[in-house]
Amino acid sequence: MTREELYQNIKSKKSFLCIGLDTDLKKIPRHLHSSSDPIFEFNKQIIDATHDLCVAYKPNVAFYESLGSAGWEALEKTADYLKKFKNIFTIADAKRGDIGNTSSMYAQGFFEAMDFDAITVAPYMGEDSVTPFLQYKGKWVILLALTSNKGANDFQIKSQAASHKSQELYKEVLEVSQKWGNADNMMYVVGATRAEMLADVRKIIPDHFLLVPGVGAQGGSLQEVAKYGMNKQCGLLVNSSRNIIYASTKEDFASKARKEAMKMQKEMEILLSK
Amino acid sequence: MTREELYQNIKSKKSFLCIGLDTDLKKIPRHLHSSSDPIFEFNKQIIDATHDLCVAYKPNVAFYESLGSAGWEALEKTADYLKKFKNIFTIADAKRGDIGNTSSMYAQGFFEAMDFDAITVAPYMGEDSVTPFLQYKGKWVILLALTSNKGANDFQIKSQAASHKSQELYKEVLEVSQKWGNADNMMYVVGATRAEMLADVRKIIPDHFLLVPGVGAQGGSLQEVAKYGMNKQCGLLVNSSRNIIYASTKEDFASKARKEAMKMQKEMEILLSK
Repeated sequence: MTREELYQNIKSKKSFLCIGLDTDLKKIPRHLHSSSDPIFEFNKQIIDATHDLCVAYKPNVAFYESLGSAGWEALEKTADYLKKFKNIFTIADAKRGDIGNTSSMYAQGFFEAMDFDAITVAPYMGEDSVTPFLQYKGKWVILLALTSNKGANDFQIKSQAASHKSQELYKEVLEVSQKWGNADNMMYVVGATRAEMLADVRKIIPDHFLLVPGVGAQGGSLQEVAKYGMNKQCGLLVNSSRNIIYASTKEDFASKARKEAMKMQKEMEILLSK
Repeated sequence: MTREELYQNIKSKKSFLCIGLDTDLKKIPRHLHSSSDPIFEFNKQIIDATHDLCVAYKPNVAFYESLGSAGWEALEKTADYLKKFKNIFTIADAKRGDIGNTSSMYAQGFFEAMDFDAITVAPYMGEDSVTPFLQYKGKWVILLALTSNKGANDFQIKSQAASHKSQELYKEVLEVSQKWGNADNMMYVVGATRAEMLADVRKIIPDHFLLVPGVGAQGGSLQEVAKYGMNKQCGLLVNSSRNIIYASTKEDFASKARKEAMKMQKEMEILLSK
């Protein structure tokens, strides 16, 4: 999917919502456990109930991996099912990254075998760990910059000495990675829990889309994110996982998920019209 | 496996060799393709031919993931097969790391479902992305510090300003992470392509084991690694992947792999006796 197509979907759906499919066997409604593939069945019902309210889905791969090859099958089925929705952007939240020839193998798995539109990548190993993912036309790298967790304090917001100046590591990541790709094949993860820092982020990358986790369960504010992070083409994909998919643990989980997703879509509609 | 047990294995086998199972369907001998699971069949024959010469195996998860759930099954079978060798340390080279509750899911997959002894973890997301892996008694985190690839220049060896001084990011990772675990549950990845830097690494972490990739195909020298990196309990696991497992692409691949592994073991025996 191109940046323009993504923006058109945001405009027509009046939403920049990404729904995180962090599907945990221990948290899904009990009645689904009798299904032959409870994880996929849960995802399918969530997707059916919410796909007109969001522009993206983001399965976090850890939740599937924790179940071994059975979980991996559920992920494959989910990726496959999402393909029937042409106006949906799909993100494998995998936080991968390895030396060049190995990153190529990850790219193969997520972009060829499962045909995701995007994958999240960790920047620690630098350029050759990221560029193999950028070889795929129409696919996206979403690079970790400033994450929403407490551990972001350990390295990301400490200053690093670049050739001519000193700046926080996450800014250094934003800046250095400009040489690897552009606003048409790279996005960045910037956590909603540090919304005021979005203003600084926008000084470095005015045009790129940002994937913003941390609204809801982790305490970030949608208003603040839009205030500091929105650009001319919206430029935001705001993710919500637990608040939506676990809105109810009973048989009404899908309709309750829809209700929560609609609440966010309505807020987004107002923010987009400003 | 405890640090003492690992050291005893190194002493009795006169080897600190780790064999990387970067098993690629495109590179394994053609006659294996008729097997019901060529990847596992290849691994099994490599393991059978080399397990007395090495102390560890390290499947790089990317190679399995690239094949989807079938690859994941081959990884599970490999992990299971390795368990029959009591004096083998098993490393899932996965380079994972996510917010706390998500890292727990990865830990579950690699430590519970597949029972690996260790997993490689990326440090970018900080403490809460690493500590869930340290909750498992007898299991190990192998944290990326200074990797063997060109991209290590992008962030790892640039100076970062800590509270009282300025030092390279990889040193900051070594130092800060001392608060998270200790030499009995953490190791570090330090690439052989930067062997002289091992002296600096040893000033910060004299006792920890290091996992050293990059000897062989990537150009690192075993002599240099031992010179700068070895400590009283050896403290090194030197990995070799392609040089050993693809020593031949014909039916003699396992015996040729043994020959290459033995060459390294003999060099290691000399280095250990110094």
